[in-house]
Amino acid sequence: MVMSLNITIRLKLSNRPGTLARVLNVIAAEGGSLGAIDLVAASPATVTRDLMVRLRERDHLPELLEALQAIPGVQVIRVADRVFTRHLGGKIEINPRRRIENWEDLSLVYTPGVAVISETLAQEPEMAYKLTMKGNTVAIVTDGSAVLGLGNLGATGALPVMEGKAVLFKQFANVDAVPVCLDVQAPDKIIEAVTALAPAFGGINLEDIAAPKCFEIEAKLKQMLDIPVFHDDQHGTAIVTLAGLINALQVVGKTLDGVKVVISGAGAAGVAIAKILLRAGVRRLIVCDRKGAISRRNLPAEPSKAWLAQHTNPDGVQGSLQEVIAGADVFIGVSGPGVLTRASVLQMSAQPIVFALANPDPEIQPEEIYDIAGVIATGRSDYANQINNALAFPGVFRGALNCHARTINEEMCLAAAYALAGIVTGEQLTAENIIPSVFNEEVAPAVARAVEEAAERTGVARKIAAGSADEVFRP
Amino acid sequence: MVMSLNITIRLKLSNRPGTLARVLNVIAAEGGSLGAIDLVAASPATVTRDLMVRLRERDHLPELLEALQAIPGVQVIRVADRVFTRHLGGKIEINPRRRIENWEDLSLVYTPGVAVISETLAQEPEMAYKLTMKGNTVAIVTDGSAVLGLGNLGATGALPVMEGKAVLFKQFANVDAVPVCLDVQAPDKIIEAVTALAPAFGGINLEDIAAPKCFEIEAKLKQMLDIPVFHDDQHGTAIVTLAGLINALQVVGKTLDGVKVVISGAGAAGVAIAKILLRAGVRRLIVCDRKGAISRRNLPAEPSKAWLAQHTNPDGVQGSLQEVIAGADVFIGVSGPGVLTRASVLQMSAQPIVFALANPDPEIQPEEIYDIAGVIATGRSDYANQINNALAFPGVFRGALNCHARTINEEMCLAAAYALAGIVTGEQLTAENIIPSVFNEEVAPAVARAVEEAAERTGVARKIAAGSADEVFRP
Repeated sequence: MVMSLNITIRLKLSNRPGTLARVLNVIAAEGGSLGAIDLVAASPATVTRDLMVRLRERDHLPELLEALQAIPGVQVIRVADRVFTRHLGGKIEINPRRRIENWEDLSLVYTPGVAVISETLAQEPEMAYKLTMKGNTVAIVTDGSAVLGLGNLGATGALPVMEGKAVLFKQFANVDAVPVCLDVQAPDKIIEAVTALAPAFGGINLEDIAAPKCFEIEAKLKQMLDIPVFHDDQHGTAIVTLAGLINALQVVGKTLDGVKVVISGAGAAGVAIAKILLRAGVRRLIVCDRKGAISRRNLPAEPSKAWLAQHTNPDGVQGSLQEVIAGADVFIGVSGPGVLTRASVLQMSAQPIVFALANPDPEIQPEEIYDIAGVIATGRSDYANQINNALAFPGVFRGALNCHARTINEEMCLAAAYALAGIVTGEQLTAENIIPSVFNEEVAPAVARAVEEAAERTGVARKIAAGSADEVFRP
Repeated sequence: MVMSLNITIRLKLSNRPGTLARVLNVIAAEGGSLGAIDLVAASPATVTRDLMVRLRERDHLPELLEALQAIPGVQVIRVADRVFTRHLGGKIEINPRRRIENWEDLSLVYTPGVAVISETLAQEPEMAYKLTMKGNTVAIVTDGSAVLGLGNLGATGALPVMEGKAVLFKQFANVDAVPVCLDVQAPDKIIEAVTALAPAFGGINLEDIAAPKCFEIEAKLKQMLDIPVFHDDQHGTAIVTLAGLINALQVVGKTLDGVKVVISGAGAAGVAIAKILLRAGVRRLIVCDRKGAISRRNLPAEPSKAWLAQHTNPDGVQGSLQEVIAGADVFIGVSGPGVLTRASVLQMSAQPIVFALANPDPEIQPEEIYDIAGVIATGRSDYANQINNALAFPGVFRGALNCHARTINEEMCLAAAYALAGIVTGEQLTAENIIPSVFNEEVAPAVARAVEEAAERTGVARKIAAGSADEVFRP
């Protein structure tokens, strides 16, 4: 993965006119883009400044520093990687919801007061939704076997991603989320660990677990636990993709049940996108893996792919992606860079929709097809139409927690997708604006409301009776 | 367990002089003690007030309410249990250490920025102490098999206690703590779960796990993990007990190596107290369980008791607690109510020290022996000299985390006890003041400093090299 670099460069500059201008010229010449400039200290002879700089490629740093040092009157004091400085000390903390101020407080929240709460919960475990963290807390569980696009980095390598996710959960939807990075990778060991630690949580968000084991783990956990289990790499991606597609089809004047869709990639995301599209009414759907179209005429051994062979590609078409894409209205890539060519897009039907979601490098660069595509979406924030899971998971869990849901079912996922699509309406909806920004504050509440309603409708919301040990006695 | 009740009673009173006075008389007559009185609303005809009342026994509530309703011009609007209202929504939350304000922030803490942190950690896992929550976070792990004095309430029953503990960890020592309530009770399953989830944590605080399995679980986890594992019911209690004893001995002018100590109770706390006392220099020590003195002449089968038989009671004395207590200087009870009698205390040597720590009802009521004991301590907050674990665990983990300790060893526990004892000095130190209050702000920093120094001294502090991927490049 090519990684950019966000740095803060501290420079001591001799206090002569033109020195800073020369610094800025050098940064631009080395391909750096400049952010804020801070004044740190000044004396008659020198000025110390912090410059925020973004380098497209980390490898260019030594050259940049050398060029800066070479300017007369410029001294590089230090260079800090802003990603690292932002991670120092970790990204989350665990706080009391109310401070303990005195003995009275202590006796209410800890011994001896807490004893009556423990006894209540031992008799009526569902009261945990009201009286403990369970009602608002999810575990973000990973084994680190498929961290971002980086592969199997293990539990510790996955931790900063899970912490980042916990930040988004809280900030976007007021959901408390605990990173749980497991040092086991066998499916049965993961299942055992998650069922063991489940009691304190109102939901389980599985994350960055490699396919195909993720399917088995999710299915078994759903069976064993009475709280929602949601594999974000599958269902989060599927929800946001469907939301984007609903709006993209509106832009080009087509319908879900009329279009031909080709998905490239049959991993966690590809399988889940295929399932939600079928559920949403897509009839002509072909999923390709590296070997080409998955077809009932050539049944794969892997169960998730066999399922796809039986439930998609009704005509049993065989062939490469390049072959089966002809005449397609929609391409959805959750595979790798360069998989799609301009020539293939030219073979698609009029106003083709191209979702090139591979991250960070999409299946095709948008620049190559601006002139021939109807709508383009990617997984990146530096192009229009970013398909970003952060649009789904906070609101989905907010809705599930609000009604103490027992599970997250297909109806809830569908409802989330339609609610998300519904945020971009009327004249806002254009080929460059099919999906809201993750900073749009309407997103999580709208998704949550839709998910909660779907949970009520499908009977998976939990009604907690005001038990004998309820908190208020009415004489 | 007899449970008291903290309630808020909302009353609507007719606005006539003397009505409130009659209410207060009724509350006093029914054995309630009055706290604050709030004015909620007032009109010319009526006044609505909230009264905070503590009832010694929950069962008296119906009589109290009936008596209040019977007063002319008094209407009971509602009664809320303050313990329950304080628990609504749980006691902890998980927050971002810094908010995400914009795309730049998002790209630093989440994708794509976080990728470089993940890669760094995959190569240098110890950097997790600097770059993730691990450096400041412990897991509070229980199976709920011995919750407070209430027995096996299971994972959910234990959760509010663990949350309370997390509140204390944060507030007293700025340690982030995550409740982990396990739905498994077999030792090997607990061990598997804890080793699986360990990577995100800088320490494991075991809690409310029944003896004798707690010994095996702690020992194996210590062996398998390279982070501190600390069973608070053992070592927390042992540290605070030793601290109290050090000071109590000063009050009566005796020394650890000179006194005869009898411990009643050979569970988690009893075993750990025996071990730390031996380590601190006590030579004449007898531990009694329900059957009497544990002795090498009558070796018990249970390994922890067999260890006690071999390492305490050098003369191999046999007999009941009542028999072996004769001539003892110190009694330490971690057993149950009523185990110690005034007659037994009269048989102890001059100025006997009695630590009756059973909770909530001590081995002997202090009132029975005020005239004959040198120093008395209990586990309760309503007597002088409360032996409270909250004096130890926050500072112990603060110290261990400060130096990224690999373990918490006996030297660190001893150092914690001496540091804690050292807070009560000079003329402050009296028979009624051998141990500081949990609200004494010197406690956690002093304990932490001592623990950290002992970790450095014994070579278990972890030095994290500024690696190639450190956060600051120096040109």
